[in-house]
Amino acid sequence: MSSQTVLFQPRRTVQQVEEGTDLAPKFDDRGLITVVTTDATSGELLMQGYMNAEALSLTISGGEAVYFSRNRQLLWHKGATSGLTQTVRELLVDDDQDCIWLKVDVAGGASCHVGYRSCFYRRVPVGDEYAASQTGAAVEMEFTDSEKVFDPLEVYGDAPNPTVL
Amino acid sequence: MSSQTVLFQPRRTVQQVEEGTDLAPKFDDRGLITVVTTDATSGELLMQGYMNAEALSLTISGGEAVYFSRNRQLLWHKGATSGLTQTVRELLVDDDQDCIWLKVDVAGGASCHVGYRSCFYRRVPVGDEYAASQTGAAVEMEFTDSEKVFDPLEVYGDAPNPTVL
Repeated sequence: MSSQTVLFQPRRTVQQVEEGTDLAPKFDDRGLITVVTTDATSGELLMQGYMNAEALSLTISGGEAVYFSRNRQLLWHKGATSGLTQTVRELLVDDDQDCIWLKVDVAGGASCHVGYRSCFYRRVPVGDEYAASQTGAAVEMEFTDSEKVFDPLEVYGDAPNPTVL
Repeated sequence: MSSQTVLFQPRRTVQQVEEGTDLAPKFDDRGLITVVTTDATSGELLMQGYMNAEALSLTISGGEAVYFSRNRQLLWHKGATSGLTQTVRELLVDDDQDCIWLKVDVAGGASCHVGYRSCFYRRVPVGDEYAASQTGAAVEMEFTDSEKVFDPLEVYGDAPNPTVL
């Protein structure tokens, strides 16, 4: 019997999925579930990724975040290359069980391959601020982090950049 | 010229997308981008949804969260039915610009159609806690919120439940 068989329940009813204690995750047509990862201490959003059933099982049983890389189509034990592993302090699931929330401690203090603490280091002006700042041209974003925590070149060397245009 | 044309830039280079100030979002093959929504005050994760280009444009220009409902295949101005609108305090984008982070104030204090404050009201035991708690049977989750903020029946009446099995 695989570990998934033990960990997950089939999705039987809305009542079971929304109001019950069964873990009955909904994987999409690619076999993936969305994962939102925040810093357990600061609450800051660090990254958003995906897991397949195996990655979710390994994360639950092992206690370190394992994702599924869509670009590379393989299990991705976060930090295996960079050393920036994520220890899971809490794992929550949403109402319809198609999203996982990980609260983690990050070794080394950074989660983003660009070198920043969080992947979310730029803000977009919204509402009144948008109206006031715009001159009819495109939106201009603003950096919220001025300093990188590490130098990607030193950590990853010449490994291909994961960003796809 | 549509508002999208004004707001967004074409994705030209990895340098532009990761290190620049152009908003050049990556919509997937369904035309959607993932959105993570947290409470601007508590930092708590409230929900995870999707936007298409129009929803993102309307959110930026209007300052209230507009999503795209995958089930209903339409623009979804959050709170139009329930009154629980989300005022956007900050909108951030991630490194490769395929995820949006909204920090919001929620009218009425609840974001989840089941009636809880957050959609994430159940936790899964992980690592050592998983090992200690399991008896070889399926994972059992634990509720983190004991009280609903509102009664879904009163707010939504007999509207169809959005959860899909």
